Amino acid sequence: MNSIGLVTKLSDPMAIRATSELTEWLNKQHRRVTVTAEAAKAANISPKLAAIKPLEDIGEGQDLVIVLGGDGTFIGAARDVLRWKVPVLGVNMGRLGFLTEVSYDEMYDNLKEVFAGHYNVEDRMMLTAFIRRESGEVLSHHVLNDVVAHKGHLARMMEFQVSINGQHVFTSRADGLIVATPTGSTGYSLSAGGPIIHPRLDTIIINPICPHTLSNRPIAVPGDGQISFRLTQNEPDRLLTLDGQTGVPLLDGDEIVIRKSDRSLRVIHSPDRNYYDILRKKLHWAETVGTKRDLSLRPADDR
Amino acid sequence: MNSIGLVTKLSDPMAIRATSELTEWLNKQHRRVTVTAEAAKAANISPKLAAIKPLEDIGEGQDLVIVLGGDGTFIGAARDVLRWKVPVLGVNMGRLGFLTEVSYDEMYDNLKEVFAGHYNVEDRMMLTAFIRRESGEVLSHHVLNDVVAHKGHLARMMEFQVSINGQHVFTSRADGLIVATPTGSTGYSLSAGGPIIHPRLDTIIINPICPHTLSNRPIAVPGDGQISFRLTQNEPDRLLTLDGQTGVPLLDGDEIVIRKSDRSLRVIHSPDRNYYDILRKKLHWAETVGTKRDLSLRPADDR
Amino acid sequence: MNSIGLVTKLSDPMAIRATSELTEWLNKQHRRVTVTAEAAKAANISPKLAAIKPLEDIGEGQDLVIVLGGDGTFIGAARDVLRWKVPVLGVNMGRLGFLTEVSYDEMYDNLKEVFAGHYNVEDRMMLTAFIRRESGEVLSHHVLNDVVAHKGHLARMMEFQVSINGQHVFTSRADGLIVATPTGSTGYSLSAGGPIIHPRLDTIIINPICPHTLSNRPIAVPGDGQISFRLTQNEPDRLLTLDGQTGVPLLDGDEIVIRKSDRSLRVIHSPDRNYYDILRKKLHWAETVGTKRDLSLRPADDR
Amino acid sequence: MNSIGLVTKLSDPMAIRATSELTEWLNKQHRRVTVTAEAAKAANISPKLAAIKPLEDIGEGQDLVIVLGGDGTFIGAARDVLRWKVPVLGVNMGRLGFLTEVSYDEMYDNLKEVFAGHYNVEDRMMLTAFIRRESGEVLSHHVLNDVVAHKGHLARMMEFQVSINGQHVFTSRADGLIVATPTGSTGYSLSAGGPIIHPRLDTIIINPICPHTLSNRPIAVPGDGQISFRLTQNEPDRLLTLDGQTGVPLLDGDEIVIRKSDRSLRVIHSPDRNYYDILRKKLHWAETVGTKRDLSLRPADDR
Repeated sequence: MNSIGLVTKLSDPMAIRATSELTEWLNKQHRRVTVTAEAAKAANISPKLAAIKPLEDIGEGQDLVIVLGGDGTFIGAARDVLRWKVPVLGVNMGRLGFLTEVSYDEMYDNLKEVFAGHYNVEDRMMLTAFIRRESGEVLSHHVLNDVVAHKGHLARMMEFQVSINGQHVFTSRADGLIVATPTGSTGYSLSAGGPIIHPRLDTIIINPICPHTLSNRPIAVPGDGQISFRLTQNEPDRLLTLDGQTGVPLLDGDEIVIRKSDRSLRVIHSPDRNYYDILRKKLHWAETVGTKRDLSLRPADDR
Repeated sequence: MNSIGLVTKLSDPMAIRATSELTEWLNKQHRRVTVTAEAAKAANISPKLAAIKPLEDIGEGQDLVIVLGGDGTFIGAARDVLRWKVPVLGVNMGRLGFLTEVSYDEMYDNLKEVFAGHYNVEDRMMLTAFIRRESGEVLSHHVLNDVVAHKGHLARMMEFQVSINGQHVFTSRADGLIVATPTGSTGYSLSAGGPIIHPRLDTIIINPICPHTLSNRPIAVPGDGQISFRLTQNEPDRLLTLDGQTGVPLLDGDEIVIRKSDRSLRVIHSPDRNYYDILRKKLHWAETVGTKRDLSLRPADDR
Repeated sequence: MNSIGLVTKLSDPMAIRATSELTEWLNKQHRRVTVTAEAAKAANISPKLAAIKPLEDIGEGQDLVIVLGGDGTFIGAARDVLRWKVPVLGVNMGRLGFLTEVSYDEMYDNLKEVFAGHYNVEDRMMLTAFIRRESGEVLSHHVLNDVVAHKGHLARMMEFQVSINGQHVFTSRADGLIVATPTGSTGYSLSAGGPIIHPRLDTIIINPICPHTLSNRPIAVPGDGQISFRLTQNEPDRLLTLDGQTGVPLLDGDEIVIRKSDRSLRVIHSPDRNYYDILRKKLHWAETVGTKRDLSLRPADDR
Repeated sequence: MNSIGLVTKLSDPMAIRATSELTEWLNKQHRRVTVTAEAAKAANISPKLAAIKPLEDIGEGQDLVIVLGGDGTFIGAARDVLRWKVPVLGVNMGRLGFLTEVSYDEMYDNLKEVFAGHYNVEDRMMLTAFIRRESGEVLSHHVLNDVVAHKGHLARMMEFQVSINGQHVFTSRADGLIVATPTGSTGYSLSAGGPIIHPRLDTIIINPICPHTLSNRPIAVPGDGQISFRLTQNEPDRLLTLDGQTGVPLLDGDEIVIRKSDRSLRVIHSPDRNYYDILRKKLHWAETVGTKRDLSLRPADDR
């Protein structure tokens, strides 16, 4: 792991400081560092210490990309890094993330372990989405978490018909529809009543948002299926959102087509940390038996 | 407030110690104290310091009853204290309760305030329940939280028909049925998907447990209605539970009848503490704006 | 009941035909009829048969207003009719509504009963909402169902702080917030996981939409409280929607204030129909014991 | 497909009549038929028309087993048929099942298609469960739907610690715990808030029933993991239920171990029917766009 790219959350002063410190440390470890021009400027990094590349090429020729920020920074970087097949390590700036599981405090120890070969690489499914429109195919995008279609503000609802490999699945009226990866199952989909799905499962979640029909429920379908949904009513102002970061207006008759990406994101984990540890911490589940914290809503417990 | 009864959670050594200390303190304050024989023995309280009464009479002739324990102790005491119309103050032994909102540390300061007249009395609705059976009416019981009917272990479900004032409300197949007061809305009913209901509302919640029909949902109905539900299938081993503390086997054809009790429980609160403060703490809601704790499931937050 | 105003769903040909027929029938019954100019034109109603008034005055001087359309038409009419204190009767054009409970087929029989004095009048709570803004108070509006604040399309969430009578209730990050009447409890709030609240209850429901914190749950609070929520982050493109029909853009720092309206809507019901009958039909609950419909998700039932 | 075993729901007169008729029809088609002694007696089937075998051996040497009854009958048969690796076809007696998807009316046409080779065979995951107890391993059982542990009637809750392959997943206090296959996802687990999981997915669902901690949510984990949960408190009267049909009392310290069975159940489907068709019908989802049925809770729809 000689060549290392850094992705920095530019709005976070701590991430900028971490970028500066980490660049120096990596140089001392005789690693080649690449940062974005924006990060170099913000962190005041000398050209001697790091090469400069635009974000979309930051993964090119690297052995590792380190994301300094939060899960949102990580998700944004995933798109850019995907095509270079380079493994990614997420470092959070104080608050544990589902994807940025290494804290800044642990970073150097963790990197030494990684450089010593003590790490696991996990492949995370990504989705590709495009819009089939009368005028042709629009947009082609990779997402790590979810594709979300949402009704416009003044619309009463969005009506859509979901199909898998051409088979009709269901028709729904709802605020919108979430199509999520297992990684995305702990994001927006969870707030909308979806299940938690282990990232190793080859499945895609289809989850209507506040559906009118109360028996409409989240469905997990096989990952090899092509999911599409067609907007069946003319309503103004609908939007398709990709990983909560990019928005595309939807038109009447649009069909949104989603399938598993050919490539998956390679994420680096410590062998000492597992998915369930992070889940428990993020969702404030009780850690051990006998801990009363979070376990004791019901008064009868104290009888 | 000269005469004060104490109710002690006997299984909690801390509550027993608190009973002993509080008895001495109250004597110094020239208040007459009454405890149960079991508490007197466990806390080694001299007959000079406290009179003895059985639990069911502990409220008799008192100006105040103090519960030392948890919400379960409080709920159990509520039944016994109800008929004496005496106000009740709940003290928890370390963990905030919905009903035992004063901590042991705050207890003496809080009592000084109460003796100085600085307190509010809140009336909490209680329910009465009985079973209409071929052989006549069975059981008559007061509850502060809820009446729960539950299918037997080996039964596939319990089928029942709910009526209000003789009007058919719904028929359901479910694991069981919860009929709860607003106080009970933060207990079992909440775990079963029910809403939080402010204790001042004059309403009764009807909440099926894991209903087969997905559109069956909790309903809040006017407090002046008589709710009844009839078991419409012959199934073994069903049980009616009252405040999670008393159980009565149900028979085929039983009709459970529930209405608001004539009397409400008088609960003492500090004017400085409100219902929503306790709710936030018990449910681990974020306390203030800007606190990231509990607010940040979605990765996009960290972009 | 001599003077009768009609409100017509203009986009529904059946409602227009019904307006024409009903006007003739009412004339034969020697009742004075008033319609809107738009309805008169669409239904080709002769000036001899009906007076003309604008929608906002259609309730003026009437003994009864009949709404011909669906629940949406009814809700829209509620605002206009409220200040005239005139009772309203809802007629649906084929599909049972929560508010338009009389079908077109039953309409004449039902009206004969009403004219014979066989009806109940039910008061339905309405809410008033306004926005407290630096520049002063904006908007003042009456709603029958709900006030909804929703994040903008590209925003990750809306953060807000809810208070009741100045007491802090909770802070939440969510897609939005629904503040609903009991009437509104079977509308949007139900899709967002809210409880069903009997219309006779004096309560307001506060229901966050897809909250990040999973323990954030719908709360029903006393109807005499003043609910307000303040937007605590700068986010673009938020909107306040009133009864799903009127939208107002929200600005940073806006505080939305909601309280029970001084006036309630007077709704006419048949004594033979009750709230629970309509609920069962609208939510497709099983009607009677022994009906297997909707009751039988679980395979074990068929053992 | 020359040798065909029949499994009959003995409590259903229609299933008994169907067994008799089908036996004759199959004989005319020159197929060898085997029934149970109980079915032969109830349906008055002559020994010339069918061989007799006990239920547990009904699959032995058959090319096909037909279940006449409902999903419960099918699930019960699955256990017995599993070890013979024979494909199973489910016929319902009037009400569509998730597993008994062929109606009695369609049965003969459907069987002609099957005999002509027009059918798909789908492998359905089954689970094996056993209890690890001080005294050794107890019970070993196969289930098609779910393994459910439930608290006793008078217990306030069941506390348990869930592990996967020895990794701690979560600790919960709840009414119980459901461990379900994808087939079981539309059974009890769905009533308890679980997701719908396509039967082709290699996953196991872990779903706590009415958990005290509101952020405890259903998790879908990889099918190759060994799930175990240990009861961490001494509580009376807990029960383990297998496919809702067999119950085993649980003792303090019991650890329940669940993993995917080596064998899967071979289910016969018509190529013309797909999983989503059945889902829509069973959950009463709207069939097509424009159908207003089930789609229209919100009044605003009718504006």
